[in-house]
Amino acid sequence: MTQSLEQLRGEVDALNRQILELLSRRGEVVARIGQLKSEEGQRHYDPSREDQQLRELVALNPGPFSDATVKAIFKEIFKASLNLEEVNDKQVLLV
Amino acid sequence: MTQSLEQLRGEVDALNRQILELLSRRGEVVARIGQLKSEEGQRHYDPSREDQQLRELVALNPGPFSDATVKAIFKEIFKASLNLEEVNDKQVLLV
Repeated sequence: MTQSLEQLRGEVDALNRQILELLSRRGEVVARIGQLKSEEGQRHYDPSREDQQLRELVALNPGPFSDATVKAIFKEIFKASLNLEEVNDKQVLLV
Repeated sequence: MTQSLEQLRGEVDALNRQILELLSRRGEVVARIGQLKSEEGQRHYDPSREDQQLRELVALNPGPFSDATVKAIFKEIFKASLNLEEVNDKQVLLV
């Protein structure tokens, strides 16, 4: 153990920033999906598509998080994404 | 809108995989932090360190997610990380 707590925290901070960037890019793509679905009159919530993503993530999970933990984190991301789709939908309706 | 739903979903899947990879790397670093804290007899839960991370993330948040949403997602990540630290701590104690 040669790394100090400060060095390790610096690594966590750098990873946080990269995760935030990817989450935000994912948010932009999901917003476009939301617009597309609205234009086509499709419903936003799609549990089978969420299951498909969770299955792929669990299959790829390298650890150290358990599969259940990976699912819990991504379900929080899905919830946020659905809110984003629905907010955009309301904005479309207001135009 | 030239991209199809399938293309956009492919982008989401690619981002999911990258997010999982970064989350897992973050998990590894946090596990090392947990070991270091255990060796030094420090407590794992550190609300001021969590607040520091949340403040930085909110300051950097480029959207489209709201600050509250970014915080909710990262709090789920913190919770998972703390579980990981504590599990490792118990493993250290069992040795």
